This record gives sequence, structure tokens and C-alpha cells, in this order.
Amino acid sequence: MRSVHRFYAPDLDPRAATLALPPEESRHLTRVLRLGVGARVAVFDGRGREVAARVTGAGSRGVTLEVLEARAAAPEPGRPITLAQAVLKGEKMDEVVRDAVMMGATAILPLVSARAETSLSALRRAGRVRRWERIAVASAKQCGRAVVPPIAAARPLAAWAGDRWEPGGPLEVALVEPSLPAGEPIAGLAASPAPAAAVVLVGPEGGWTPEEVEAFAQRGARLVSLGGRTLRADAVPIVALSLLQFMWGDL
Amino acid sequence: MRSVHRFYAPDLDPRAATLALPPEESRHLTRVLRLGVGARVAVFDGRGREVAARVTGAGSRGVTLEVLEARAAAPEPGRPITLAQAVLKGEKMDEVVRDAVMMGATAILPLVSARAETSLSALRRAGRVRRWERIAVASAKQCGRAVVPPIAAARPLAAWAGDRWEPGGPLEVALVEPSLPAGEPIAGLAASPAPAAAVVLVGPEGGWTPEEVEAFAQRGARLVSLGGRTLRADAVPIVALSLLQFMWGDL
Repeated sequence: MRSVHRFYAPDLDPRAATLALPPEESRHLTRVLRLGVGARVAVFDGRGREVAARVTGAGSRGVTLEVLEARAAAPEPGRPITLAQAVLKGEKMDEVVRDAVMMGATAILPLVSARAETSLSALRRAGRVRRWERIAVASAKQCGRAVVPPIAAARPLAAWAGDRWEPGGPLEVALVEPSLPAGEPIAGLAASPAPAAAVVLVGPEGGWTPEEVEAFAQRGARLVSLGGRTLRADAVPIVALSLLQFMWGDL
Repeated sequence: MRSVHRFYAPDLDPRAATLALPPEESRHLTRVLRLGVGARVAVFDGRGREVAARVTGAGSRGVTLEVLEARAAAPEPGRPITLAQAVLKGEKMDEVVRDAVMMGATAILPLVSARAETSLSALRRAGRVRRWERIAVASAKQCGRAVVPPIAAARPLAAWAGDRWEPGGPLEVALVEPSLPAGEPIAGLAASPAPAAAVVLVGPEGGWTPEEVEAFAQRGARLVSLGGRTLRADAVPIVALSLLQFMWGDL
């Protein structure tokens, strides 16, 4: 049942008996997968709703479907985790977005930190956020989630950190190099009660600056490391999300 | 200190005061990194020994070094984990080898299972095991390990499974699809004492066949899944190794 083809229709109306796929999804159904009238598929709206549906029309004007019934998607984590990720170079950031969606991240917040090798204007010119949104949709399709995590507009780390911190807000967890004396092994988090929600901060290839780490500590973030080996920057999010979900009972 | 350049010299003699780098490593030191006489570097033998050293000669006949002192490499896991991986397509398997070394796997055993999209003869013709060995060396350099996990010759899964199972041997953990009723959440392993050693079995893109899963169960392997989302085949090893090391106190 899980291996049925899944399509993304953000305008899916829960009360309607029929639906039309967006143009790109219609093309994918007819031209790539070569499905036609009668095919049974799944459609999700990116906000958690998923239905089983049957193709009733597949032509040049797009694909229409009859809604059959609600359908269970992959479960969402009970404790939402936002990935606040310093933007990595080129395809590495694409892979991080893909992996974070697969691992259940609830939202992705791209940050430009001191050592990030890009700028906000370069990201805007290249339409990177729009690209990451497409990657998030593709990853949600593949992994079975009916939720497409929102990708926030990229911000400077300082602007994010300047937002007033609210008591009772999400637990902030900043991943730091194992060589940094300030960091504790991530297992230390298991000794505290699981938070209602968390923000995980992951640095760029060159790591955080000492000032950035100090600023995280000042705002009460937990500084944690992932063992004594040096992990590739683009591997840190998948490892960190796996461990936090495991620790907090979501895996 | 961790950011020093590290070189691989499998013939490193622990009693010698000097050493010579192999040709490829010599070229890397002089031509890529453009280091010369006087440079301080680290050298490891792939079996756990690492030394600090100083370049004393760097010419067309190779690089020689003076050994200064023993040096601490990244710690090795206390509970060895072998990754028994059904061979994935092309670069995906390269990435799995790279990630598994970074995550502390003790050995890698490539298997050809029923749905693996390759054959032993194709792997041999392409020299794939030799390629994975080079990737393992590169990953050990990058992550700070002084151990290069051996890559076994690829074998058919049936041949591996046909080896007599020894009581008291390593715990076998087979990763299975979340939709499979036979699997338990990986967290279930935390309820048992940590094993002295483990073999983690990860399937190919198309998964294990029902017969393969049944054979794993018959030999006493634990069948575990990684939550309700469908993970990409090449992401399963990094997630599984992270969680097992965490559970068994090695992260």
C-alpha cells in the first residue's frame, strides 16, 4: 500500500469528491509514470491530509481524480523539530533539505552565518529557497509524509539570534565540534525531560565562529557534539535529527 | 590540533624514528597541499596507530618524515559494528562506504542479495572493492580515525548466510521496511543488554525478499525498522549506525 504513487496537490479540498492535479503533477502522472484513467494513486496537500484517489481524466488539460477515502500518511513527530541550518555549498544544501524532510523535520530555516560561503543576495538571485521547496516536496513524496515542511526565507544568523527569546519557547540545541570544550555529548539531552518542541542549529562547512557559539550559550542553547569523529557538515543534520527523534520517542 | 593534515602509511613502523610516505600520499602532500620540509603533519597506519611527524624530505623520490610522538586519533567504538550492506547502485554504494567509515563501522561486508541490481562478476570487472577501499581511506583521513575498516570481497547473501552461525557470535540486526509486520522499532534493542559486537544488515534499493527476511529471522537476527517514514536505501546505514552507537554508549 505504501508503494502507491503519491502526488502533491496543495489545494486539495477535504470536502470535494473530485480534485484536479496541478500542471507539473499532471505531467508527471501522464508522461513520466504513464498512468491513465482508472489508475489508483494517493494525493496529499502538504499540510497532513492524504487521500486515495482514482484517475477519471488524463488529457492535455490536466489530470482529474475522484476522491475515494482518507488515507494514512507516515506519522508526524510528536515533538516538532525545526532545523536551523547554516547554508552549505551548492548541492550539499539540497541534500540536507532532502534528508531533513525524510527524517521528519517540521520546518527548515536557512541561516547565513559568519563562515557560510554565500550571501543572502546570492541565494535570492539563484532562487535557492524556491529550489529547496521543490526538493522538500519531492522528498515528502518519496518518504511517505503528507506534510511538506515549510522552508523559511534565508536570514542572517544575527537577525535570527536577535529575535527576543521567549521563556517556554522551543529547546535550542546547537551542534558544535567535538574538540570544543563547551560541548557536551548529545546523550546528555536524554537526562532532561523531552521538550515540547526544539530548534536544532547546524553550522556550515567551516563551523561556527567562537562568537556564534558564545551567543548560543548566552541565549540558553544546549551545545552538543556527536562523538569524537569529525562528521561532514552535510551529514550532521541527518545524524542529529535521527538521535533527537530517537531520544524523544519519535523513532 | 584535529585540523592538521593526515596521511595514510600502512607500513608505519612503530619503532622507527623516520618514515616514508607511499607515492600517492607523497604526491598529495607536495602537489595538492603544497607542503614542504618542516611542515608538521599526522600519519596513521589504518590499524589504529597515529603519530605526529615533521617533513624532512620532499622531492621527486617521495616524502620522508621524522616521527615526533604518538598522537591520539578519533576514538574507536567499544562495541565493533560490521556493516553487511547489499550493494547499492553506482555512487550510492560509494556514499554508503564513506558514511559508514565516518560513523565508526569496524568492517564493511558487501553482499549481493536477490534484489541487488548488480552481480559479483560486474563488481569484479569494475574493481569496485578496490574503489571502496580508497574511499574508506579518504573517509578515515577526513573524520580523524586511525583505523581504516577492511572492505571484504563481495559475496552472495546466500553464501554469507550459509556460514554456520556460532552461539555467542555477534548480534545480527537486519533493517526491514516499516510496513513489514515482522519488524520491531529499533528502540526495542535498547531493552536488551548491549552486545559485545554486532553485524547490521542493510538491504538494496528494492529491499529484501520475504525469503531473505525469513532466513534472517531463522538465524536469530533481530528485525528492526527505523520509524514510519520510508528512508532512501543509501540513508539507512548512516541512520542505523548512529542509533546503534548511541544506544550502545559509543556516541
